[in-house]
Amino acid sequence: MAANKPGTPKGMRDFSPQEMVKRNYIFQTIQRIFQRYGYTPIETPAMEKLSTLLGKYGDEGDKLLFKVLNSGDFLSKIDTESFNNFSSGELTTKIAEKGLRYDLTVPFARYVVQHQHALTFPFKRYQIQPVWRADKPQKGRYREFYQCDVDVIGSDSLLNEVELIQIIDEVFQALNLKVAVKLNNRKVLVGIAECIGAKDSFMALTVAIDKLDKIGVDKVLDELRGQGFSENSLESLKPILAFDGTIEESVNYLKQLLDSSETGMKGIQELEEMLEYLSAIDVVCDLDLDLTLARGLNYYTGAIFEVKAQETEMGSICGGGRYDDLTGIFGLKDMSGVGVSFGADRIYDVLEALERFPSEIITSTKVMFVNFGKKEAQYSLPLIQKLRKEGINSELFPKAAKMKKQMSYANAKGIPYVVIVGEEEMQTGDLSVKNMATGEQQKRSFDQLLATLKK
Amino acid sequence: MAANKPGTPKGMRDFSPQEMVKRNYIFQTIQRIFQRYGYTPIETPAMEKLSTLLGKYGDEGDKLLFKVLNSGDFLSKIDTESFNNFSSGELTTKIAEKGLRYDLTVPFARYVVQHQHALTFPFKRYQIQPVWRADKPQKGRYREFYQCDVDVIGSDSLLNEVELIQIIDEVFQALNLKVAVKLNNRKVLVGIAECIGAKDSFMALTVAIDKLDKIGVDKVLDELRGQGFSENSLESLKPILAFDGTIEESVNYLKQLLDSSETGMKGIQELEEMLEYLSAIDVVCDLDLDLTLARGLNYYTGAIFEVKAQETEMGSICGGGRYDDLTGIFGLKDMSGVGVSFGADRIYDVLEALERFPSEIITSTKVMFVNFGKKEAQYSLPLIQKLRKEGINSELFPKAAKMKKQMSYANAKGIPYVVIVGEEEMQTGDLSVKNMATGEQQKRSFDQLLATLKK
Repeated sequence: MAANKPGTPKGMRDFSPQEMVKRNYIFQTIQRIFQRYGYTPIETPAMEKLSTLLGKYGDEGDKLLFKVLNSGDFLSKIDTESFNNFSSGELTTKIAEKGLRYDLTVPFARYVVQHQHALTFPFKRYQIQPVWRADKPQKGRYREFYQCDVDVIGSDSLLNEVELIQIIDEVFQALNLKVAVKLNNRKVLVGIAECIGAKDSFMALTVAIDKLDKIGVDKVLDELRGQGFSENSLESLKPILAFDGTIEESVNYLKQLLDSSETGMKGIQELEEMLEYLSAIDVVCDLDLDLTLARGLNYYTGAIFEVKAQETEMGSICGGGRYDDLTGIFGLKDMSGVGVSFGADRIYDVLEALERFPSEIITSTKVMFVNFGKKEAQYSLPLIQKLRKEGINSELFPKAAKMKKQMSYANAKGIPYVVIVGEEEMQTGDLSVKNMATGEQQKRSFDQLLATLKK
Repeated sequence: MAANKPGTPKGMRDFSPQEMVKRNYIFQTIQRIFQRYGYTPIETPAMEKLSTLLGKYGDEGDKLLFKVLNSGDFLSKIDTESFNNFSSGELTTKIAEKGLRYDLTVPFARYVVQHQHALTFPFKRYQIQPVWRADKPQKGRYREFYQCDVDVIGSDSLLNEVELIQIIDEVFQALNLKVAVKLNNRKVLVGIAECIGAKDSFMALTVAIDKLDKIGVDKVLDELRGQGFSENSLESLKPILAFDGTIEESVNYLKQLLDSSETGMKGIQELEEMLEYLSAIDVVCDLDLDLTLARGLNYYTGAIFEVKAQETEMGSICGGGRYDDLTGIFGLKDMSGVGVSFGADRIYDVLEALERFPSEIITSTKVMFVNFGKKEAQYSLPLIQKLRKEGINSELFPKAAKMKKQMSYANAKGIPYVVIVGEEEMQTGDLSVKNMATGEQQKRSFDQLLATLKK
C-alpha cells in the first residue's frame, strides 16, 4: 500500500477548482492585453531534443534540465564495458535524447529558425505554457511553473521596448497591483566595465552585481576581488553602485561617466529615445533606471527590464530584455528581438497575499434543481436544458438523496439559487425558488426564474 | 552545425498562430459547455510518480510511458555489478522515479484520493491538458496530444450518463459536426460472455470484439479460437455480433438473449433507464446501441460510450464510460464515477478536413498605424493607446520602413484597416484610413475611425 500512497512528485502541484478559477483570471488578463497589442499565440512541445536545450542555460541550467529516457531497450546500444566507466553525466547523453523545456525563450528561438519562411516579420508572438526545472523546491519556487512570454523578433526598433513597458503597465493595472519597472541597458553595463578598467571581465561584473539585492555591496566587491578586479576598479565602481536619482538625473550622471565608451554612449542614447517615446503616452507604473540591474542571462544585448510588486516582498514577477543574436545558436543571424516573461505563479502568490482576486470571478453553477426522484427529474430535465441554452450554468442533483445532503452540496459549491420541484410544482407549473444567500423561498414561473438568473 | 539543426522531437508538433486560434476555438467551446453543466476545472502536474502510473495501462501502456531520469548523480546508488545484470526495464525503475502522464484518468483518480477530504461529492470536474505516449507516430496519432476530460465521481446515478450524452450532443452541435454516439454496457457484455458459455474468458472476449471494426468478424473469431473459446461459444456469438436494429429492437433482443444472466439483465435495466430520461429532452445526435463496442480498458464496469464523426472516416473522437472502482487502486473504495474524454487533436483534424472552422474566429489585429518616423510615431502612440482602451487590437509598425513593406506586413497578418499619419494628417487631425479589403482610402476623424473599428 505504501508504494501506492497517492501524491504528486516533489515540487509539483495539483490545482483545485478554486485555484484554477484564479489562475485562469491571471492568464486571461495577460492574454487579452497581449492580443490588444497585436501579439498572436504559439505553442511548442513539452519536450525538445536535448541538443536544442543543452548549453543554453549555463552549466547549472544543464543540471536542472529534466531528461526523458529513450523509449524501448535503451541499453542495447551500450556495451557493458562502457557502462562501468561512465559517470551519470556521460550515461545521460547515451540514454536520453529529449528534455523538458526549461523556459519558453530557447524553444521560441528554435521555432523562429525552423519556421522562418512561414513567418511574417516582425513576428509578434506570445506563449503561455509550463516549464520544468529540477531546482530545489522552496517557497515561491516550484519544479513546474507557468511562464507567459511576449516577444517581438525581427525588429530592432526601440518602439518595441516602449510597447513592452506599456504592456507591463497595462497588465498590472488590470490585475490591480502597484509595480515598479526597473530599467537598464546592457550597453551601459559594458560602458561601466570599460570605464572602471574591467572591459575584459564584463561577464564576471554582471554576474556579481546581479546579486547586489541579495548579498549587499560588500560581498559583491569581495566576489569581484576574487575574480581579479583591481582595487582601483572597485573604487571606481562603488559610487556607481551607490548612485540614486530620477531617470533624468541618472542619464545625466551616465553621460559624464561613460563619455569615453562608445558602447556605453550608445546605451544612453537608447535609453533617451525610449524616454522620449514614453513621454507621449500615459504610463502609471513607477519607472526607475537601476544601474545595478544586470540579469544573469548572457543573451541580452540592450534594454533589460525587471518588475517588482511594490506592496509585498516577492522578488521579480516579470522580466526580460533585448537580445540581438538569440537565433544565431540555431543558424539564423541578424534577428534582433526583445521580450518579457510574466511569472504567473509568483503573480498568483502576490494577488493571494494581498487579497486582490476580484470576488466576482469565483463563479460556477448559477442554479441547482433538487432531485426528488425519477418523475420529478424527468419534469426538470427539459427546464434545465432551456436554462443552459440561455447561457445559465445549471445542475440537477443526480440522485434523490436527502434534502439536507442536496442543500449542503449546493452550499459547498456556492450555488446561489436552488429550485425545488415536487408534486405541487409539477401541477401548477410554478417552481419553488430558494435564494441561498438570504434563505428566502418564493414561487416563480419559469420565465420569472430565468429573469432572476440572468440578472 | 548538424547537431543544432532545429526541429521538434519525433511525433511532437509546434502550433502556429493560425493553428492556435483554431485549437483555442475547440477548447473554449468544450470548456464553455462543461461549465454550463456545473463542471469545474482542475489541473495536475505533467509528471506523476512512476508508482502512480505503472500497471494502470497494461504491459503495452507501461512501455509507452515516457520516463523522466532522476536528477543529479542517479548512478551513485547502483553498484557496478548490478549494472551488468540489469536489463533496460530493470534499470529504468532504478534511475527513473517519475513519468509523464499517459492520460487524465489515472491522475484524476490519484487527485480524488489525495484530496478526498477537501472535495464536495458528487465531484464534477473537467481537465484539459496534454498527455504523452511513446507510440509509433502516424497520421492522426501524436506523441503529445490534448485530452479534454469530463467526469463526475461519487454518484452512481444514471442521470450522470444522460448528462454526458447531452454534453457530447451539445459540444458537437456547437462545433457543427454530425456525430453518432455508440452506447453499450459492460454488464451486457458480461451477460453475453455468460450466455455463450465463456464467463471466465470475459477479458479475452472484450479485447477481441473491440477489434471488430478494424479486423472483421472472421479474425475476431480466429483470435477467440486461439484463446480457447469452444466452437459452440463462437456459434452463439456470431448472431450477436451480426445483430443490427434500433435501440429499442436491440434492447428487446437482449432481454430474451440474456434472460438467464443476472448481470446482463442489470445492464439492460440501466440502458432502459437511460433511454427513459433521454426521452424527456432533445438530443440531436444519432444514438446507437452497439453490442460490439467493448473498449479495451479494464476499469469500465457499466455504460460505455464512443463517438464517431459521420461525415468523415476518423475513428473515435470521444469516448468513455462508467467505472465503479477507479480510486480503489489508490486505497479509496466505493467511489463510482463516469466520464468521457474528447480528443481535441482528432476533432481538429475532422474540422480541418471538413472546413468547418468558422471564418470569424481568425481574428487578430484590427488596425495598424503606418510608421513614417519618430515625430509621426509620437503623434500616433496616444491615439493607439485610446483605441486599445476601447478594446480594439491595434499595432504601430515599429519602424519607418518602406510603405510597401509595412503594407505587406498588414496584408500577411490579415489586418483589415491601416491608418496613415503624415504631415498633413498631423496638422488637420484627420487621419487617412485605408480599408484593406476594398482598397478604399478616406479621411476620418479619430471618433469616426473608432466607430468604424467598433462595428
